[in-house]
Amino acid sequence: MYGSGEAAALSIQAYRDFRTYAAAVARHRPRDSVVLAQGSTLQDPRFVPCGRKPVAVVLDVDETALLNVGYEYDQAAQKRSYDPKRWSDWEKTGVRAMRPLPGAVAALHAIRAAGIRVIFNSNRSHENAAYTELALDAAALGPARHLKELFVTGDAPGGSAKDSRRALIARRYCVVAMAGDQLGDFSDLFNAKELPISGRRETVMSGKIARLWGNGWFVLPNPVYGAGVKGNFDDVFPIDTRWGDPAGGQ
Amino acid sequence: MYGSGEAAALSIQAYRDFRTYAAAVARHRPRDSVVLAQGSTLQDPRFVPCGRKPVAVVLDVDETALLNVGYEYDQAAQKRSYDPKRWSDWEKTGVRAMRPLPGAVAALHAIRAAGIRVIFNSNRSHENAAYTELALDAAALGPARHLKELFVTGDAPGGSAKDSRRALIARRYCVVAMAGDQLGDFSDLFNAKELPISGRRETVMSGKIARLWGNGWFVLPNPVYGAGVKGNFDDVFPIDTRWGDPAGGQ
Repeated sequence: MYGSGEAAALSIQAYRDFRTYAAAVARHRPRDSVVLAQGSTLQDPRFVPCGRKPVAVVLDVDETALLNVGYEYDQAAQKRSYDPKRWSDWEKTGVRAMRPLPGAVAALHAIRAAGIRVIFNSNRSHENAAYTELALDAAALGPARHLKELFVTGDAPGGSAKDSRRALIARRYCVVAMAGDQLGDFSDLFNAKELPISGRRETVMSGKIARLWGNGWFVLPNPVYGAGVKGNFDDVFPIDTRWGDPAGGQ
Repeated sequence: MYGSGEAAALSIQAYRDFRTYAAAVARHRPRDSVVLAQGSTLQDPRFVPCGRKPVAVVLDVDETALLNVGYEYDQAAQKRSYDPKRWSDWEKTGVRAMRPLPGAVAALHAIRAAGIRVIFNSNRSHENAAYTELALDAAALGPARHLKELFVTGDAPGGSAKDSRRALIARRYCVVAMAGDQLGDFSDLFNAKELPISGRRETVMSGKIARLWGNGWFVLPNPVYGAGVKGNFDDVFPIDTRWGDPAGGQ
């Protein structure tokens, strides 16, 4: 899946959708952004108002804007599990084997040409922020200057939970569209501990949240890691969808 | 990935895009369809003209319109490899454990309400066509009457290669949009034997074909099987994107 034609097509499609939507909405200066306001729930989402703030889009970095192809190769080839030190080494040394997602460069170019700011909200480490700036520049996705167009872990409270960084960004900008590969790239509410995987999927498909997908919130596919690939059997396959061959075949 | 919130979000997004695009294009009756004409290459695609034919969209069935949740559960729980007989049993008996993709029911409803025909082009078996009609009806995606709105393997020459069925459909209809989870749902040219996986990805990202994704050709994610998950290491990770920790860490 990682290197497939299908994945490239999905990416080009999502970025076209993202770019077209952002340009159309920015022309009409919406009343509300697509960043959830404090006090929202997934059943009753409310959005930070735009006021007169300059228009922007917000993107995650890893597997949304940048493909960490070299890292994933090494992980798979050596059958490694996640090691924070190795990931940190990758952030510092892997620039040459990172690639922009298909469609990303053209989309961000068009978005900036429309006068819309591009802001990155990443869980990459604070100590390696300068390397991440460099990686985004090298992939023709920049500028991504730390604390101007790039926010990383530690730039606001909450660690790898992104809501406080989103709030910081939404105080400065009218965020008209966001892109990410995991639900936490849109709201920490999706990662609430009490929400089981099937419940998480239900909230995605319900109410006002359901209307945001492809309509302010844009998802890129990531089958390799993260919340999208968690879950044991019973989480992924609810009991009413199970089936064994009634003919009794082995 | 199969049961994740991220997958549901991707599906809702793709179906919103598909529905919006189809309705907009149908209003302006395009000169050309999005079905490749005979004699096309991926470098020089040409399209079947629309003439005065009634407007339609074409979708694949499995993992595009219908999720085979019960089958995938059984395959995974029993660690099975693909067995055509077991798949055929599923086509006949699995209706209750099939689900529409998130967003599909609303999208097809809106498309039909706009006066656009919905046609399914599936590699399900000819002998089980009546069961497939039933499954699509049960998932609220019908009508899908065999040889009217549903075409399966054997309805035109070529076996599981779909181009000849697409040609048959394109003789009757002006096909303005297509949806699928594998590149073969758009053209058999992507499955040409001489095309390696990296070449396949390159053709997706190049020239006129690149401009079709999200713009007439709509992809749904399928990480479970098919062309999107084929490929050995060297195919997926080209040599210029490989990386080993330069610090020499183990």
